Amino acid sequence: MKKNIKLKIMYDGTDFHGWQRQTTKRSVQGEIERVLTKIAQVPVTIDGAGRTDAGVHAIGQVATFQAELPMCIENLKKVMNSYLGFDVMITDLNYEPEDFHARYSAKGKTYQYKVYNYPERDVFKSRTMYHYPYKLNDDLIQKACMELIGSHNFESFRAAGSSAQNPFRTITEIDFKRDGTDLTFTFTGDGFLYKMVRILVAFLLEIGNQRIELGIVREILTIPTRKYTSKVAPAKGLCLLEVYY
Amino acid sequence: MKKNIKLKIMYDGTDFHGWQRQTTKRSVQGEIERVLTKIAQVPVTIDGAGRTDAGVHAIGQVATFQAELPMCIENLKKVMNSYLGFDVMITDLNYEPEDFHARYSAKGKTYQYKVYNYPERDVFKSRTMYHYPYKLNDDLIQKACMELIGSHNFESFRAAGSSAQNPFRTITEIDFKRDGTDLTFTFTGDGFLYKMVRILVAFLLEIGNQRIELGIVREILTIPTRKYTSKVAPAKGLCLLEVYY
Repeated sequence: MKKNIKLKIMYDGTDFHGWQRQTTKRSVQGEIERVLTKIAQVPVTIDGAGRTDAGVHAIGQVATFQAELPMCIENLKKVMNSYLGFDVMITDLNYEPEDFHARYSAKGKTYQYKVYNYPERDVFKSRTMYHYPYKLNDDLIQKACMELIGSHNFESFRAAGSSAQNPFRTITEIDFKRDGTDLTFTFTGDGFLYKMVRILVAFLLEIGNQRIELGIVREILTIPTRKYTSKVAPAKGLCLLEVYY
Repeated sequence: MKKNIKLKIMYDGTDFHGWQRQTTKRSVQGEIERVLTKIAQVPVTIDGAGRTDAGVHAIGQVATFQAELPMCIENLKKVMNSYLGFDVMITDLNYEPEDFHARYSAKGKTYQYKVYNYPERDVFKSRTMYHYPYKLNDDLIQKACMELIGSHNFESFRAAGSSAQNPFRTITEIDFKRDGTDLTFTFTGDGFLYKMVRILVAFLLEIGNQRIELGIVREILTIPTRKYTSKVAPAKGLCLLEVYY
């Protein structure tokens, strides 16, 4: 009998063309489906909690699939990890009730965005951090983060190509920390629009660099415009940290 | 008039086929020479302090070259870095007397080797750390390091293909540190034989895992044999930290 199985997945997105299965390019979904199909000996498809873009990383991506497997769940994890490349791994695997779905059952998500803030770049940080060489006023960023928390119309912070009907989202927490040259933004909310986190980060950096005034935050949450949010921070700084159910 | 110029170079070795120039494959030397040739408008070749193998990283690789350049040294650094890929950069650049040579003038080197010691792998550590999943007795490793420090015949710790005539080397310091799951070995000496650091690390891990007895260290430093040192730790854990002049 087929069972509903939930996977927790960690990947370094650098060498993937994103989450979503593609005909010729290497994707995380494609890579995992290839391995599961090999193990199950019949085609297996998986549903991810979110379709991360090319270059985006994950520590806690979640996916579900239905299959009849020739081994117990503990062994499945080991076998999958031995077949998967060095840049993707299954960190957890368990059975779920049949109505559980990685995307539709998700109640919220946490994303992390890392910035390397120093005049010169660093070759060892270039795969997982965005290099921002300009001066930042952390206090202004901190204040802008506070303004963004809550339920708002995030129309100003969504990229073209977003398919969501409703632009209202609730951000329950934005944590902003500096450790010397390294900045970490952590966003938790009930959901995020297309490229919303990366647009938020680019905007927050403009605030910190004093190119955009703090007052603009409230203004564009009230009257939607892309006038101040045309920039999108690079994919490589972004990581899907956790999905809540 | 041509000047003698010294470069300090940092690179993530993952996507390079080593330091040395190759006809078709991407190498660090080839990459830097390509950029210098473009800037100088005449062919420029550089000499590195050491030829790191494919996958080996560097924070303080040094190279020298002679050229007449159309700009000052400060601008040269900026222009070179803007032409170089994201995984290699020039961190320092200065004039040296004409008899200074990156390799022949070197008096010593420091290499660092990083190990991730945990049962499961970690996708974000896979480019710069060697995943060693087995238990280790740190105290045994610490003691073996102490035995290795000093002037010895390191014949037992050199790979086939080593061109050096003299297998005697002096290791002035071996620092071994554990930070949770992360181990760092730091070796400083007057020079290292071919693959010597990686063979030393593989051997030290065998000591820590109690597959080789501590007493063997002194034995094979006295009577050379590859019986206990056939393993070579992977390139990706190694980083050339500094070259001394």
